[in-house]
Amino acid sequence: MNPFTFYNPTKVLFGQGMVDKLGEEVLPYGKKVLLVYGGGSIKRSGLYGQVMEQLSRIGAEVHELPGIEPNPRVSSVRKGIELCRAHNIEFILAVGGGSVVDASKGIAAGVPYEGDVWDFYMRQAEIKKALPLGAILTLAATGSEMNGNSVVSNWEEKRKRSFGSIHTYPRFSILDPTNTFTVPRDQTVNGIVDIMSHVFEQYFSRTTDTPLQERLCESILQTVIETADAVLENPKDYNARANIMWCGTMALNGGLISAGMTNDWATHMIEHEVSAIYDIPHGAGLSILFPNWMKYVYKERPDRFAQYAVRVWNIPAEGKSQEELALAGIQATRDFFTRIGAPSTLGHYGIGQEHLDQMASETVLFGPVGSFKPLAKEDVGRILEMAL
Amino acid sequence: MNPFTFYNPTKVLFGQGMVDKLGEEVLPYGKKVLLVYGGGSIKRSGLYGQVMEQLSRIGAEVHELPGIEPNPRVSSVRKGIELCRAHNIEFILAVGGGSVVDASKGIAAGVPYEGDVWDFYMRQAEIKKALPLGAILTLAATGSEMNGNSVVSNWEEKRKRSFGSIHTYPRFSILDPTNTFTVPRDQTVNGIVDIMSHVFEQYFSRTTDTPLQERLCESILQTVIETADAVLENPKDYNARANIMWCGTMALNGGLISAGMTNDWATHMIEHEVSAIYDIPHGAGLSILFPNWMKYVYKERPDRFAQYAVRVWNIPAEGKSQEELALAGIQATRDFFTRIGAPSTLGHYGIGQEHLDQMASETVLFGPVGSFKPLAKEDVGRILEMAL
Repeated sequence: MNPFTFYNPTKVLFGQGMVDKLGEEVLPYGKKVLLVYGGGSIKRSGLYGQVMEQLSRIGAEVHELPGIEPNPRVSSVRKGIELCRAHNIEFILAVGGGSVVDASKGIAAGVPYEGDVWDFYMRQAEIKKALPLGAILTLAATGSEMNGNSVVSNWEEKRKRSFGSIHTYPRFSILDPTNTFTVPRDQTVNGIVDIMSHVFEQYFSRTTDTPLQERLCESILQTVIETADAVLENPKDYNARANIMWCGTMALNGGLISAGMTNDWATHMIEHEVSAIYDIPHGAGLSILFPNWMKYVYKERPDRFAQYAVRVWNIPAEGKSQEELALAGIQATRDFFTRIGAPSTLGHYGIGQEHLDQMASETVLFGPVGSFKPLAKEDVGRILEMAL
Repeated sequence: MNPFTFYNPTKVLFGQGMVDKLGEEVLPYGKKVLLVYGGGSIKRSGLYGQVMEQLSRIGAEVHELPGIEPNPRVSSVRKGIELCRAHNIEFILAVGGGSVVDASKGIAAGVPYEGDVWDFYMRQAEIKKALPLGAILTLAATGSEMNGNSVVSNWEEKRKRSFGSIHTYPRFSILDPTNTFTVPRDQTVNGIVDIMSHVFEQYFSRTTDTPLQERLCESILQTVIETADAVLENPKDYNARANIMWCGTMALNGGLISAGMTNDWATHMIEHEVSAIYDIPHGAGLSILFPNWMKYVYKERPDRFAQYAVRVWNIPAEGKSQEELALAGIQATRDFFTRIGAPSTLGHYGIGQEHLDQMASETVLFGPVGSFKPLAKEDVGRILEMAL
């Protein structure tokens, strides 16, 4: 186990009706609120009305930034920063999925910074402070509700980049599973893949002597896998939605499940370059790429992949070599993704060889990616080719 | 799954040498520090010197409260409160095991309170604020390093009572497994039983539809069980000590592993009354009581106990009824406790019928205890009799 620091100051309010606590949670931070949201589904669902009622009850002055994109744009973040400065905003409230929360974190960090917020994503500046923010989650996927990470796309530069900071953890996150009842099937599927992928990035690690952490990872994977059918068959199954939602939060809450383990994150970095150019859903990109990454790297630690096959997929170990088990686990992953309707090839989105070299170059912009097997440009290129 | 609020603001610094960060962690809170510790083992181990060097480096004015008892006394807490008031202490640093951290929480809560601190433990007052505190842990057991709970004994009243408050979470906890290398075998065993018991109190729940939480609980139990031999055979096995230590913290960190589950805690309340009168080690009391509690209550939910037997103890389910599995899991628990050297009867400490009625009465002082099967006085009496 590696030494580690773990600090996660996000307060979680989980369960049906928790939006009723919104007013009292916002109040300590101030009454000038920027409300950030996406395409308007929160108006159709009635959540917008509930939020406004809560904010009105505490006498808040509410400014709005609607229209955050599924792959949020730095242009939207910049717009939010201007709004905050123009109206002396004291608190940012994100109501939506991971993209809305991520954009809000960019806004929060950008307001007190004199340069351009894109600097943080390009590692040209460090976040020293941020406006406080809170979240009401409407989609189980990214874990952004309980960590300091933000992923944003720069459409002009065709880049999708991230930062992580202790200053951009939401002060609170309201997680009401009923707010995910209306999430369409394809987004639910992408969320499931995203949650599992977050665990993969931590679980497939070269760090040894981390038995608890490995089991915590396996616990999330097993729970998501066994819950997927219920949530897809009945999108209004409260317990199924609740379990997926809590798995999503636990999968990426400041590194808790992998405390003391070196993480990988190469597949996420490759996916970011794919969706930076093609604007495909993040979860779909991960579904296409992850089994290919697994096939490319598993020989680095077949024991971990064999453990994955046995413990997560219940593949009988008897009579099989570690390599056979590893490959069976990878195949089970692909089969599961396919069964729930997630894509398996870049061709699914009409993506061919055209920008493959560019995506590989951009992935290693700051050097080789990943730690399980550090990937240079040619490795990334091969994984992308496998995914065609 | 029940609705829940989860908020755990403790920063954990885990790993060898993390005490080197002590100075910078204390500094934001002030320079007038009360150093709280136990019987002097930290002087023998050299930790005391490291702490003083760190505090001196930041120019801290250090006052000391040594001699905190293994079952900490409210008299020691009162002494600490007086010291804090006399010297305008700004920060309390607990260096020791759970008893030292628990006593420090009592002090932290008592300083700004005009009444007697025992009021908090007797539920006659609510904690509204507290001095900030931090911890350097030297014993893996209570989880006090990452929660707001404090358990203290009142020797005059022969009572051992607890409180839990968001205001008494340590601001930081330094967890260096090497600081547990010199923990004697019996205390290591008691710590293991304590950690497992904390999980039991959460895992044996009537709440349904909590698959992730159940697996998180099972993960800790499995890891502790498989690590026990290594840590007992070689007390200086860094990874074994690290894994037990992290299990101890995760087992009771503000309710994370059982978020959304109704907890029980009856066995802890019974044990507190035993050690309030007989001053036996908490872990030893739990080892004596828990398998008896299990036998007394398992019929309320044999399915959960059967799951425990299969998943935690790898007992083959084939051909066995739920009840047979449940009983086999309970027996496995007792056998494990016995194998690592934990006691199984109150008689081990020469405890007989004498105060049995008094202990049962005190346990239900505020009404029936537990939620898995709410226990009235006669139930508690029967469990104590089973444990004779």
